[in-house]
Formats: sequence, C-alpha cells, structure tokens
Amino acid sequence: MKYQKAKSLEVQEWLNTDKDLNLEVLKGNIIVIHVFQMLCPGCVQHSIPQAKKIHERFKKDEVIVLGLHSVFEHHDAMNKIALEAFLHEYKVSFPVAIDLPQENDYLPVTMKKYDLQGTPTLILIDKQGNLRMKAFGFVDDLEVGLLIGTLQSEDDENN
Amino acid sequence: MKYQKAKSLEVQEWLNTDKDLNLEVLKGNIIVIHVFQMLCPGCVQHSIPQAKKIHERFKKDEVIVLGLHSVFEHHDAMNKIALEAFLHEYKVSFPVAIDLPQENDYLPVTMKKYDLQGTPTLILIDKQGNLRMKAFGFVDDLEVGLLIGTLQSEDDENN
Amino acid sequence: MKYQKAKSLEVQEWLNTDKDLNLEVLKGNIIVIHVFQMLCPGCVQHSIPQAKKIHERFKKDEVIVLGLHSVFEHHDAMNKIALEAFLHEYKVSFPVAIDLPQENDYLPVTMKKYDLQGTPTLILIDKQGNLRMKAFGFVDDLEVGLLIGTLQSEDDENN
Amino acid sequence: MKYQKAKSLEVQEWLNTDKDLNLEVLKGNIIVIHVFQMLCPGCVQHSIPQAKKIHERFKKDEVIVLGLHSVFEHHDAMNKIALEAFLHEYKVSFPVAIDLPQENDYLPVTMKKYDLQGTPTLILIDKQGNLRMKAFGFVDDLEVGLLIGTLQSEDDENN
Repeated sequence: MKYQKAKSLEVQEWLNTDKDLNLEVLKGNIIVIHVFQMLCPGCVQHSIPQAKKIHERFKKDEVIVLGLHSVFEHHDAMNKIALEAFLHEYKVSFPVAIDLPQENDYLPVTMKKYDLQGTPTLILIDKQGNLRMKAFGFVDDLEVGLLIGTLQSEDDENN
Repeated sequence: MKYQKAKSLEVQEWLNTDKDLNLEVLKGNIIVIHVFQMLCPGCVQHSIPQAKKIHERFKKDEVIVLGLHSVFEHHDAMNKIALEAFLHEYKVSFPVAIDLPQENDYLPVTMKKYDLQGTPTLILIDKQGNLRMKAFGFVDDLEVGLLIGTLQSEDDENN
Repeated sequence: MKYQKAKSLEVQEWLNTDKDLNLEVLKGNIIVIHVFQMLCPGCVQHSIPQAKKIHERFKKDEVIVLGLHSVFEHHDAMNKIALEAFLHEYKVSFPVAIDLPQENDYLPVTMKKYDLQGTPTLILIDKQGNLRMKAFGFVDDLEVGLLIGTLQSEDDENN
Repeated sequence: MKYQKAKSLEVQEWLNTDKDLNLEVLKGNIIVIHVFQMLCPGCVQHSIPQAKKIHERFKKDEVIVLGLHSVFEHHDAMNKIALEAFLHEYKVSFPVAIDLPQENDYLPVTMKKYDLQGTPTLILIDKQGNLRMKAFGFVDDLEVGLLIGTLQSEDDENN
C-alpha cells in the first residue's frame, strides 16, 4: 500500500506549547489531529472529550494529540482570546494550532489545503508522516483505537 | 407560606426578541430563567438542553423561558458577538438577556442582586412574581416538572 | 373535567411487600405504576431507573410507586424466581405485583383489563382513584414531574 | 514476550450456532469473549452493547466474538430458557456458550479454570491461541480497538 504524505500545517499561532510543532518536528510519532471550532456543538460534545481521552491514554507513548482550530464561520466570535478561554474552561491541555486565516477567503489555509468538509474532522498520521485517516464527523473510539494499534505495530522505517 | 418577590433583571441588551421583557411585563406567567455563561461546560452540556426542552414543551402555555447571560469571568471572550454566534450554533431560540456589567466589579448587576453562586443557576418565578426556586448546579427534570406543575395549579391572584 | 376510575389490579402475588396493596387500600395517595417485563430492554434501560428515581424522591410523600410485571411473551423465562433475581440485581425495592396470568390467553388479566399496548407503560392515578395517565413507551421525567405536581395540588375530595 | 496459551472452554451447550466452537477450531482468528450473566446490570448496560458493536464491526474479518454465560448466582433464574429469551430480546446474534455447571460448586467450570473475578469480563485471544487480555469490569472501546489493531498486525505464525 502506498500512502500520501501528510501536508504541513499552516499555523498562525500555537497555544498550550512553547514550540512550533510542525509535522516535520514530530516525525517518528503517531499524530492525532482533532480539527475543531470552539462553537461547534458536535466538537464540544464528542470530539473534544475523545481527544482528551486519547491524549490522557497515550501521553507517555509515541502518540501525539494536537488540536487544529480551523475557523470558517463566526470569525469575530472565535478569535484567539475566546479560544484561550475555551481551552481553559474545557481543560484542554494538549497543544492547539490556530489555522492560518486567509485574507479574502472564509476558509483558513490548512483547512483548504487538506480539503476538509467541516468540523469535527479527525486526522491520523503514521510514524512515516503518511496521512492514514481524514474523517469528517464523529469517529467511534473503537475505530480510533484500532488504527492506532495498527500504526503502533508498523516499523518506523519501511512503510 | 410567604414568598419573596423576584427582583427585576438588570439587562444590558436582549437577544432573540424585539421587546424589553422585564419581569413586570411578564407578570401572570410562570417564568423559568436559565442563568448561564456560553463557555461554562456544565451549562452547555446540561442546562441549555434542559432550557430548550422546557421552552419547546411549554411554548404555547403560560410558561416563559428566558436565558440570562451572566458573565463573571473571561469577559473579553464572552462578549455580545460571541454570544450571538453561540445562540445560533446551539439553536437557542428563546429570549436571552445580557446581564448588565459593572465597571469596577467582575460580577454583573443581576448576578450580584440575586446573590448567585455561579453558573448554571435555575430560577423559577410564579404567576404572582414570587421567587420560587434559585438553584445552583444541575436540577433534575423531574424537579423542574414538579415545581412547574405546582405553580400551574396555583391561582393567579391569591398566593 | 371528569376522569375514569382506575380499575383494580388483578394480582397473582406481591413481591417486596407483606401487604396486599390493591388500589382501594392506597386511596388518598398519588399512585405511579410502572408496567414492565424483566426482559424488555426499554424497561430495563429507561423505565426501571425512572421508577427508582421517583420512588427515591417521593418516598416520604404521598406518592406510591408500584411495579406491575405483566408478562405477555417468554412466559417460561420470566417466572417468579427469575423476577426475584432481577429485582435483587437491579436493586428495585418498591412493591411489585405479578399480573395474574390467564389460562388460555398469553395476556395477563390486568394488562387486558387496562387494554395496554405493551411494556413499558406508565400509569398515574390521582388521590381520588382516577386514571390520569396511561402512556406506552418512555415518558420524559419533565412530564412525570409536571403531572405529579398537578396531582399534588389537587384537593383530596372534590375532583 | 511470552504469552500463556488460552485454556479451552468447558461448555454445556452452544446457542446461536450449530457448531462446537471450541478454541482449537477457531485458531488462526482473533477471539473476543464476553463473559456475562443475563441478570448482571453492568453486562446489560455496557458489555452486551460493546460485544454487539465489535461483532458488527468485524464480522467479515478474522475477529470472532463469542459470549460465555458463566452463571455463579441465581442459578434457577438464569437457565437456558431464560437465556434464550434474553438473547432474543437483546438481539444478540453471535454464538453464546453456556459455561459448564459443577455439581458441588456455585462456580461453573470455565469461570473457575480461568480464575475469573466476576461478570462482565472481557477476554481476548490472539491468532496463535494466546491469552492477551482478561479484564474484569468495563473496558473502554479505545482499549479494545487498540489491542485488536495490535493483534491484527501480528503474524499468524511466529509470536
């Protein structure tokens, strides 16, 4: 099987971290990216709790959980100050990237690059940097566990 | 039994309505007030759904559901623009009052006047304008139904 | 308004009580009857927890919660021994009546008399002994609370 | 790593299947065994739905879901007739083994052999026939998925 390389994230600013966590830096790890909007009910109800559970479960392993805040509506309401308050109130401690806004487009850059349908979207990247899942909507914990188990079993080098 | 009169609401602005819905205007109705903050997880998970259910159930009766957005933290994040986006995303259609901010106090005026402990808080007012419930935290639907049933059975005049 | 009198229960045996709790004996109280079958998934998931909650909430008031085990399928599986084990495992402590089986009919007597569609069914009887609710399926806690609140507000005598 | 071989199941009778599905027969497959009692609330609420989900998800793969009805209390209530009614009502379609009862012991044979603490218990066996999980209580879907993903990635031969 031949997988597509995951495209780099275009980030305006990182929260909950001092570092620039671009995908190159994280290579060698399994990466779980929860793409969300802080005022998206489905994200708040299902995806944020799932992301927190995965983060808690794997934080000592080589599975990195990232949030990507890709705002494509209500831009004035979901700014950086609001997002910081949201992360504080919902006790989100994993790093969150603010997707780079575009001047003449309501879609932010990474969202467009990845051709995402909306939020929530779950992205999984393997140790080689390949895109292995890009799923719009809610993904069952069983599926997420299954894919992480598969990715963990793969060699670091030869996929 | 002798009940305290419910104090008037001090409101900066009403959303989801053209009218000024102060308690005097609504007198003769049973009034359910859900005091919330848009970034309070307990409000989003439990109280907003409960308020929507009560609103849906009783909208043709004399039970009026109001929201009261009493911001006492993250004031910059929970402004009017953010609240409007929130009400849109969470499909809240009942009238919502923005509690009047105070200049040198983080507590808004109505919250202070009513001596509220935090959000969510559920307030019930009878047809006579008396305060009949002021409960911090989550109140079971059974309790809310029970009190509404009791208040509906009371005369309009002589309590 | 004129209500129908609630028909008497035809009972093979009472569990969780020493007394014969026919409706005549209980008159003057509000009576909540949860009609169930121990192997009915909807009863186990929704109605038994609701009945336990009502029982717990009102046990010191004049609201009596009764179970009525109306078996109309799998008669061999849902016998008295099985029901006793079920009540023990699910920690049901309110009195439960075994609906009287009929010899040449799969329907037990009370179920037929009350013309019930199936299980779960929720029955509410007022202090005067009138039938005030007979609802097949799951009834929201808000509705149950509302009706109990109404029934509590009614006089004992003149309805 | 060296794993213990999974012990054979001692079965009185199989339901939902015509075959004797002992572990030797199933070798080469990943096997998920949900040990339950039909009147155990935790089994009904969590484990049966989880087992049904795993069965539905993997039924075309080499993951076999089995139930093991290990009765160690209320033996009279949880007999074969009752179990058949239960499986019908709860729409359980995967094969279920009745754990072999012992004459002078309340514990059935397989339960004793496997030294199980109670129900629900989740057992996972790899393609080589090794015991890879034996967990009492409720196991999160994420964990189950993770282990299945790992087991699927292992060779059939050399573990």
